[in-house]
Order: sequence, then C-alpha cells, then structure tokens
Amino acid sequence: MRRLVDPDSVAVVGVSERANAFGSRTVANLKDFDGRLYQINARHAELAGRPCYPTIAALPETPDCVVIATPREAVEPVVRECAAKGVGAVLVLAAGFAETGKPEHAAHQRRLVEIARSANMRLVGPNTIGLVNYATGAGLTFSAMPECRPIQSHAIGIVSQSGSLGFSLAQGIERGVSVSHVLTAGNSCDVDVADYVAYLAQVPHCRAIACLFEGMADPRRMLRAAALAWEADKPLVLYKIATGQEGARAALSHTGSLAGSEAAYAAGFARAGVIQVDKLESLVEAAAFFAKAGVPRARGVAVIATSGGATIIAADKAEAHSVALPQPGPEAAGVLAAQVPEYGSTRNPCDVTAQVIGSADSLAACAGALLADPLYGIMVTSHAYAYDSATLRLPVFSRAAAANGKLVCNVWAPEWLGGPGARETESDPHLALFHSMDRCFAAIAAWHRRDALRRAGRTADGRLSDPAAKERMDALLAQVGGSSLTERQAKSVMALYGIPVVEDRLVGSAAAAREAAEALGFPVVLKGESPDILHKTEAGLVKLDVASAVEVERAYAEILTAVDAMPPRPDFRGVVVQPMVPRGVEVMIGARYDAQFGPLIVVGLGGVLVEILRDTALSLAPVGRAEAESMLRNLEGAALLDGFRGAPAVDVARLSEIVCRFSELAADAGGTVAEMEINPLICTADRIVAADALIVKGRPN
Amino acid sequence: MRRLVDPDSVAVVGVSERANAFGSRTVANLKDFDGRLYQINARHAELAGRPCYPTIAALPETPDCVVIATPREAVEPVVRECAAKGVGAVLVLAAGFAETGKPEHAAHQRRLVEIARSANMRLVGPNTIGLVNYATGAGLTFSAMPECRPIQSHAIGIVSQSGSLGFSLAQGIERGVSVSHVLTAGNSCDVDVADYVAYLAQVPHCRAIACLFEGMADPRRMLRAAALAWEADKPLVLYKIATGQEGARAALSHTGSLAGSEAAYAAGFARAGVIQVDKLESLVEAAAFFAKAGVPRARGVAVIATSGGATIIAADKAEAHSVALPQPGPEAAGVLAAQVPEYGSTRNPCDVTAQVIGSADSLAACAGALLADPLYGIMVTSHAYAYDSATLRLPVFSRAAAANGKLVCNVWAPEWLGGPGARETESDPHLALFHSMDRCFAAIAAWHRRDALRRAGRTADGRLSDPAAKERMDALLAQVGGSSLTERQAKSVMALYGIPVVEDRLVGSAAAAREAAEALGFPVVLKGESPDILHKTEAGLVKLDVASAVEVERAYAEILTAVDAMPPRPDFRGVVVQPMVPRGVEVMIGARYDAQFGPLIVVGLGGVLVEILRDTALSLAPVGRAEAESMLRNLEGAALLDGFRGAPAVDVARLSEIVCRFSELAADAGGTVAEMEINPLICTADRIVAADALIVKGRPN
Repeated sequence: MRRLVDPDSVAVVGVSERANAFGSRTVANLKDFDGRLYQINARHAELAGRPCYPTIAALPETPDCVVIATPREAVEPVVRECAAKGVGAVLVLAAGFAETGKPEHAAHQRRLVEIARSANMRLVGPNTIGLVNYATGAGLTFSAMPECRPIQSHAIGIVSQSGSLGFSLAQGIERGVSVSHVLTAGNSCDVDVADYVAYLAQVPHCRAIACLFEGMADPRRMLRAAALAWEADKPLVLYKIATGQEGARAALSHTGSLAGSEAAYAAGFARAGVIQVDKLESLVEAAAFFAKAGVPRARGVAVIATSGGATIIAADKAEAHSVALPQPGPEAAGVLAAQVPEYGSTRNPCDVTAQVIGSADSLAACAGALLADPLYGIMVTSHAYAYDSATLRLPVFSRAAAANGKLVCNVWAPEWLGGPGARETESDPHLALFHSMDRCFAAIAAWHRRDALRRAGRTADGRLSDPAAKERMDALLAQVGGSSLTERQAKSVMALYGIPVVEDRLVGSAAAAREAAEALGFPVVLKGESPDILHKTEAGLVKLDVASAVEVERAYAEILTAVDAMPPRPDFRGVVVQPMVPRGVEVMIGARYDAQFGPLIVVGLGGVLVEILRDTALSLAPVGRAEAESMLRNLEGAALLDGFRGAPAVDVARLSEIVCRFSELAADAGGTVAEMEINPLICTADRIVAADALIVKGRPN
Repeated sequence: MRRLVDPDSVAVVGVSERANAFGSRTVANLKDFDGRLYQINARHAELAGRPCYPTIAALPETPDCVVIATPREAVEPVVRECAAKGVGAVLVLAAGFAETGKPEHAAHQRRLVEIARSANMRLVGPNTIGLVNYATGAGLTFSAMPECRPIQSHAIGIVSQSGSLGFSLAQGIERGVSVSHVLTAGNSCDVDVADYVAYLAQVPHCRAIACLFEGMADPRRMLRAAALAWEADKPLVLYKIATGQEGARAALSHTGSLAGSEAAYAAGFARAGVIQVDKLESLVEAAAFFAKAGVPRARGVAVIATSGGATIIAADKAEAHSVALPQPGPEAAGVLAAQVPEYGSTRNPCDVTAQVIGSADSLAACAGALLADPLYGIMVTSHAYAYDSATLRLPVFSRAAAANGKLVCNVWAPEWLGGPGARETESDPHLALFHSMDRCFAAIAAWHRRDALRRAGRTADGRLSDPAAKERMDALLAQVGGSSLTERQAKSVMALYGIPVVEDRLVGSAAAAREAAEALGFPVVLKGESPDILHKTEAGLVKLDVASAVEVERAYAEILTAVDAMPPRPDFRGVVVQPMVPRGVEVMIGARYDAQFGPLIVVGLGGVLVEILRDTALSLAPVGRAEAESMLRNLEGAALLDGFRGAPAVDVARLSEIVCRFSELAADAGGTVAEMEINPLICTADRIVAADALIVKGRPN
C-alpha cells in the first residue's frame, strides 16, 4: 500500500497527444509530484515536454506505481508487463468490467486480479478515478483536482468507493478544508476502502478519516480496518450508503459490492468506535471537526450568540442530542454580568447581544471567561452574517480557544453558504465550521461517546460460560436426528451455557403427569413434546395454568387427542410437565447467522413490542456485559425493565449476564445452528428463567 | 399592514450625523425606495444631502410608516406624535423593553401598544431589526441588507420573529435566491409573524413563504394566518423552534413568547397544510423549491446521476421518505438504452455515466425522455463537481424541464458549497437547488402530501353527534356534585354522543347482582361505583371474568369488604354489573384542554404501547373522519388494528367515527371539563365498545 499511496516513482501508460485523454490529464495532475514521473507511449519520443518510454520494461527503474490509462482492451497486457517488472501497484482507470453485470467482463476483471496477486502487486479499480496524496503531490487521477498544499495539521483523509463522490467531497478544499488524501476505489477488485482506511490509520499527517462506504463482501475486513484506526487514535467518520432495499440494489449493479445487514454493520461500527453519519453533507464537516477537536476536557458546552433565535435553536438541538449546556461558574458568570447589556441573556445559551460581539475587548472577555470555565469542554457560537465585519470576530474566538486548549464551533446561519468568514473558520485550527446547528450538536455528542468508549477501554470480559460447553453441545447436537431440537433438548443446550431454564419432567401417562405436577407444585404447564411441531400453541399442545390433579388429567387427554387428530402423525415423545412461571417482563433473545457477519444476536421485549414494533437490538456475537446492558437499555420499551405499574424492577445485571452467555452459545454454534431463540425469558424481581427455547440445526443461508 | 409593508411614504426619526447610527443606516437602506422619504432631526436642516424636518407634525404629509431609531428613552413621545398625526405604522428599533424580563420595561412596552392601538396604528417591535420590501426598495431596517432587484417570479417571502436570523436567511440572495420580503417582528408586542404571514398570503409577487416561528400566546392566530396562505395557494414552509424544554425557556427570556405544546402545533399546522421543517438549513431551500415546483403531475421521481454512489444515496433517501422511483416507460427506456454505455445503468435511479453528461445532445435526449414520461412528476439529479464544465449542463436540464412543465432538482454533492453552478441553479425557474439528497426527498414528499391534502379538499364532514347532545350533557354535568363523575355517569355522557358503551346495572344487594348477571349473561364484571375512587382496580373494587352465580355473590361481598376497609369511607353508590367484553384490541381515547389551543384529543393503543412507549397521536378537537383515521394509521402499533396473530381486523372506519364523536364531545365540553378518557375502548372484528370511561369536571389549567 505504501508503494501505491506514497510512491517514489510513478509511470503513466496511455499518455497521448490529446490533452484531454485520461493519461495526459493524469500527467498534468502530477505536475507538483515530489517523486520521479515516467510517460509510456510507443509512438512518441516526447509528449508535453517530457520524454516517453515505449514500454514499462524499458524504464530505467521499476516504478512503485503505474497508472494504466489505456482503453479497456489494452489493459491486460500492460498489467502483465507491470507484474513482470515488479511494479508495486497499478491503477486501472478504464470502465466496462464487473460493473456491467456481464459475465465476460467480470471474468476479464478476475484475470487482472489473478495476474496482480500472483506478482504480489496491488491493483486499484478497474473503473476508478484514482487517488491523490497531497503530501507528495501524487495526483494519480484523471479527475480535475483542487490544489491543497501545504496541508495543515488538522488535515483529513477522504476514502470513497465512489470515485465521483470522493472528488465531490475533496472540493471542500476550495472552501478551506485541509485534505491529506483522496483515495477512491472503483470496482475494488483488489484494493478497497478497508485497505485505504487501514493505510491512513498509520499516516501521521492525516488527523481524521472521512469514509464513504457502500458495503463489501467481507465486512469483517472493514471492521478490522476500523480497529486499526481506533488503535491509532484516528477518528474514523463513516457514511454507510446502500441502506435501503433499492439502494442496495443500485449498489449491486454499481460496483458489485454487497450491501449487507445494516443493523449488523451499525453494531460492528459502534463497537469499533466508528463515528457514523447518515448524510453525505455530514461527512467532511464531522471529519474536519474531529481532526481539530482533541479530547473533551469537560462535557459541558457553552453557547454564545447575538440572536435570541440562535440560542433557542442551540438549546433545542443540544437537548435533542442529549448534550448538556450547564450554567457558567461564578467567575465566568461575573464576567458575563459585567459585559452583557440587560436586553441580552447571561444564561447559557448566552445571547450576549450585538453590543458585545461588536467590541473585540468585550467579546474576548466573554469568550475567554467561558472557555476558561472548567465546566466547559467546547464552545458553540452562531455566525449570524457573512459580512467582513462578522469575519473580524473570528480571530478573537480563535485566540480565546487556543489560550484554553479548547475548540470553538462556528455554526453558520447565513444562507450565503460560501460567504466571507467561512474559509477563515475552516482553515483555523481552533475553529470548526458547521452549516447546521443540528449537525454541530450531533458531532459533539459523537465526540463525547467516542471519549466514553475510550475511557471504558476494551474491557475484555472473558468468557462467562463453561469452556467445555461447546464440546458437550456438539455431542448433544450430533445425537439429534432431524433439524429441529425439541424444547427439552434446546433447553438442555442452553443449560450447558449457564442459562437458567424452567425445570420439567417428560411423562408418558396421565398418572405420571399428575405425579410430576404434584412434585413440581401447582399450577403447572403441560406441553406435547415433538420435534415436528414448532408452533405448539396453535396446534393445541400447550395447556397453561393447570391448577389441580383433575385438570392435569384432562389436559393430558386433550393433548393426546390433538396429537391423534394430526395428519400425518408427528414424532410424539410424550408430555412435558413444567411449573407455571409467574408473570413477569417477557424478554426475547435470538441468534441468527449472517453469511457476511457470522453469528448475530438480537434482544427484544416480549409480545407486541417484538412482533409489531420490532423493538429489538442487534449485535455481533459474542457480546460483553456492558454491551449487553446497553442493548437492553436502548430498547424503546426499556422502561418495562425498571418496574411497570408498580411491578418490581428486573435485575438487569443478571439479565445482561444471561444475554452474554447466550451470545457465547451463539458464537460457539456458528456453522452448525441456523436459528436459535429463547422466547419468552421471563424476568421477575428475583428470578430470570427461560420458559421456552428453540434450536434449529443447519448452515447459515 | 399595507401601510407598514408597502408604504408610499416613510419617515425616519433618529437620523444623525453619525453614519453608523441606526437612523442613518436605515436611510441608507432606503436609497432605492420607490416612495417618498423624510428625515426627522430637530437640530439639523439637512443630513446626508437630504432635508430634515424637526418633528413628525411638521411633515408636509402623513407618512404611511415611521421608523423610530431613537434611544429607548425618546421612543414614547415619538410614538405619541405619530399616533396624533395618523401614521399607519411605526417600527421601534430600540431594545430594552419586555425582553429584559423587568416589570418597568414591560410596562413601558405596554404603554406603547396602548397608544398605537387607540390610534389604530400598527407597531413593529420594539427590539426589531425591521423589514425589507424588495418590490419597492423599502429597506425599513438598520441591518446590512443584500441587494435583490428585480425580484423573480419564484421569489420567496421570509418571515421571522428573530430579526437576526431573518436577515441571516435573507443572505440567500447572495447565492441567487430571489426574495420578495424580509419581515422580522422583534418583541411582537403588536405586529407578529401571524400578521406578516397573513399579509404575504395576498401579495402576488411572493410565491412561497419561509417562516421561522418561536411560538405565540394565541397560537390559533398563527393557524388562521396559515389558513389564509392555504386559501391563496401559497406554500408556507415553517420551522418551529423552542421545541425542547431549554429552548422554550430561552424563548421565554428572549421575546416573551410562549412556546406552547409542540404536538398541538404540529397537529394544527399539519391540518392547515403547512410544510414543517426541523432545521434552519431546510427553510429557505424548501421554500425556494415550493416557489418553483407548481403542482405534481405524477408521483414518480426520475433520478439521473453520473455516479453510482449518487444513485445509491438517491435510492436510500427516496425509500426513507417513501417516495417512489418507478422504472421508465418503454419510450424513455428506449432512449436510455440507446444513449447509456454498458458500464452505466438505465434502471431508475439511472447512472447515465460521465459520457452522457459530457455530451449536451445525449444528456438532452435522456433528460427529455424521462421528463416527458408521464410516470414522472419531477427529476432529481446529482451535481458532482463545482466546475465550469458541470455548469454547462444546467441549461440542458433547464430546457428539458421547461419543455415538459416539470422541475429538475439539482442536488449539490461538492463540498465547495458556493462553487460555480450553484447560483446558476438557484436563479433558474426550472431548477431547484438542494444541498442535501435527504432534504431534497423530504421536500418532494412534503410536496406530494400537500397535493394530497389539496385533492382531498376541505371535506367538512359535518357534525356526527346529536345537535342536542351538548345541552343534555350540560344538564347532566350540572347535576353532579363533586368534580369527578362516576363511571356510569361518564358513560351516559359518552352515550349522548353516540359512543357505544358497555351495558350495565347498578345493584344494591348480592341477590340483585346475581339477578343482573343472569340477565346480562355470564361472564360478568362487578365494579364498586363511587365518584371518590378514580383507580378502582388498585382499590380492589373491580372483579373481572365472574363466571357463575356463586362467584357473583363472593365478588359482591369482597367489594363491600374493600369499601368498608377504606379510611375515610367513600361516597359508595352500589355495585355495577356489566357483561365481560371479549378480548380485543384495546384503544385509548382521551381529551385534554390546553390553555393556548383549547380542546385536544389523543388516541393510542392500549397497555404498554400507551404507558411505556407513549405511542399516541394528538389533534385539535373536533376532527373529521379522514383525520381520525390518519391519527390511528400513524400509530407505531397500527398493525394491531389489521389483525395480529391471526386475529380478525378491527373496523377502522367505525373506530374513526367513534374518535370523531369523542372529539365533538371534547370540543363541546371545552371550558367545563378538565379531563376525559375512554380506556379501554375494546375493538373486535364486529364490535367496538367503551369498557370504562372517566370524566373530571373543571377548568383547563
């Protein structure tokens, strides 16, 4: 990857006398390249004032990187030549490969990959616009590219599967954003956005990464790249597109990438500390903020504006994103009281009025006092007008921010989006520019969450379950003939992992049922036991709340009658007698196996909450206790766990532990079990127990 | 209002030799004013080359409008003078009135209002930045203001309580937005945003209104203004701020406005056809779109882009906003197939590739074919780069749009926000500029909703309930001694409005209870009847599912024991026997009385859905059938109404009718009833019946 993104020498194949040809445009984009540049053209000795070489083989050295700007038909021989020469990486600009959806073009693409891989050479594209390394001036692209040198200490790297949108984002340079790299992937047949993110993770002059991501066949590669960025303490801001069904279909036809399960991506990214945004316009803005923000020294936010309306909007959006706007301490409050006229407001969010903003001294006093207050980790201000006069106050904010080692977020209110003051804000290391109060507070909330995750550390819980459980489960599963386990069998698998299951007795006669019920204590539940019947309630095989010996006998008889009436007769193993679990909060825990992500677990609250509202949380198995608890707490109906209508609260710590154990079971069962569920897990104040369980063997589909 | 916003003559009081004084800056802003302008200054005969008059009284005519730019202390005498002269309206720029929160300044403000009102003179402010009428050049403001003449056919009017943000929005002019008026209100002691909206509703050269709204003491005034805009077919795009608790508090301290109930505002605005946005950055963008969009001729949206990534984002956002992207008809499909190379996509959203976009003929063919397709009412395109080359394609889109009487939305992808092409898009009547794919599809969805509302028309359902019901209810309420009605009394009030209630018998002995139960049919419910006990279940006064005569006698005895055990002894009226209503979907309908909005009704689905998830819909009473049905259909758990776990579906038409009847009861009861609820209303396939009802008399609080 170093030879690709940070090459010492570059060759361009497909340079021609036409200045508009991809090759010629690429050479033009390399005019400031710090390294050695070669042109390949067999028909000219010189083009655009530079010598040409007839072939790659004829070059005086082996170039790190070759840009292949020829038409599609000529690509393959050049790739072979590069492989033979020992080139580090090639970029293939031509389109018309796998993205056409045609088998012959996909095969062509696969051949290129094979050639490159066998020579240990990286390949970008095909159908790529290319990449830019602003640190060295390596503009390995035919696209028009903005100038951006020298790059600043708060530079961001842009990574995009879509070349066009990658360069759209890079135009932020024109409004003052400092960019270290623009790395686009195209068809991603070899180098993809995960490679780029992993590479940027270790580049010191890239302070944060903005990544536009469509999905990939092996999403765990992207999660590993995110982990590298996390370990390098490099904020990774990511916009995952192709989230809807139509979007996913468009992605499929676009570069052949796979959209994957959105919820699984979200869970994986959240665990990896990725800052996810949901709009293109948030991506560069948030990355530029993170590149300047450092570590929060306090959670409070101070707001300064000259407009009551702006302070209201700040308060609304802070509340919407659960960001605190505490009142200033006595020292700052004193300064504000002395400076702000009576028609303003010294209450945070502060309407300091135009009178304060109009005086550099008065503004410096107010901004300085608030930024020095240990309650505040950051300041937000609303930029009211794009006029030169408003621009004059930016250095006042910048100096106050620098003096206190904190950032000031300048939220742009004028509809003159590129007006005076915007560029000055963007290029100042102590000021961050936002075009939306909502996105500003969203970014601050994400900054706080990232800090919380960092403080919590990677608390490797360690496995809770018996280390021997997997072996014993495998043995148990091997004994089962068909694909579905009976409820009793499923419960015995759960029990291996320390999951509490309701006690039961399998009986073969009414008398035995009666005896079992008396031993367990009334009321009891009777269920017909058969691996063939998944929906026992609908089949009349479940009798709840059976309260006496006489009722037990009647219930037993009814179950047998129901079984006898079934065509074809199921594999009937007898009747299970269980104690009736008292009412409580019903929780569902399930596992499914995703072809891309592997084992996933889902938790939800019972009844209509799961079935109608789909109020569930999903994560990658296994999960730690903190993550399990946060899944439960984030359910819409989480208040049910805290006691509802005077019911005692559920022991959430114990419940989280059971979720962890289930997730370890799910991870162990990956590849052998298709589906697994506890529903309901009945939770009362002092007891949590699985009242029903389901396991279906099989491979993931 | 005409003399205020569209004056023939203007006088400015407080002009001084200092060019920076509010008065002088206002006169400078009137340099292009079409009418007559007078300066008032007692100490100078001439200022800035114009004559001065010593007093308002000394003017050669009565000016329509006077801008009072004096310090606070000098305001009141000038207002008196203007009132005496018969001036139409005054603007008071000085701050330091009610917004300070100090009683003496609030009293000062009230005095100004009294003077103005007694002279039938309108008053803007105090604490206002003023207003601009771009049609006449009346810049009645001390603020820097962008130039915008001539205004275009798609001009928008900007209305804002906050003066500062009003002029921030007006800076959209600098990027090509056409603006007819900027009307700001300041303290709104007389003229407020409702007045401005009502005024703009009847101004022909304002095509759409963008309104930033904080709230007001009488929100029904704003709803009436919105109704005027609707009747004039003028789209009103509104951003309601001060939605959170802190925001509302900031609003209170800002201009003394009242934030009011967000849900009630939202319901009222939705009914009035207002297009609500939730971010400042959406306001001008959406209004500019509506000013150009006309009426949708079809619901489908065609998407054209040169980037697979952009088509994916379009598909994601269309799906998120439930906007359809149908596939082109055969004719358009044929044109696309002929023009788009194989590495593009002719499937909507179409990636036509840079090859098509690079050729004006090819692009004209593709865009023209899609816009001519009767499936499409509008086209969305993604603007990839802010370069001159990309700007060249805008006239191609504009011509194709104009030829087909449809709009093309140009969604700006480059992070160079003010780059080349943006102004050209903004000022083109056939192109709309969006800086966000999400906001583009949000606006299109709002456009469709507005059209649906217009097609539905104002279906004045007419009252469903007995016209005499109110009189009979009042008589019934008058008979009730305390504040709470018993369940039987509440049900009899509901029955007056045709709401089906469960049948019941009030009995005074166990034998009578047994007789009543036998007559009603088992199982039955027994409830202790007392106006003193609101929570009968918790008090042990409700016995459900009583299945036999013996059980009736036991239940009766238990209720009497529970009553006897209560200290102090409640007003006990006997025991009510009701048939047990079979299980069904439980619905809650409630009414509450808002001091600002009057009677509101709330519907929700039963149990945890209401109590934990607050899954409810609110509206202003009374509601029509269509609105009642849409309230029910918009509940998160609405799927419960369509049959859950194989249960038969609820008769939603009948349920909606009952909601209407309840809303008529709520409207009639306004002022005499504090709280009213049916919970549960039990809905099965063939029957809907109120199983419990509550009415508490009293005044709204």
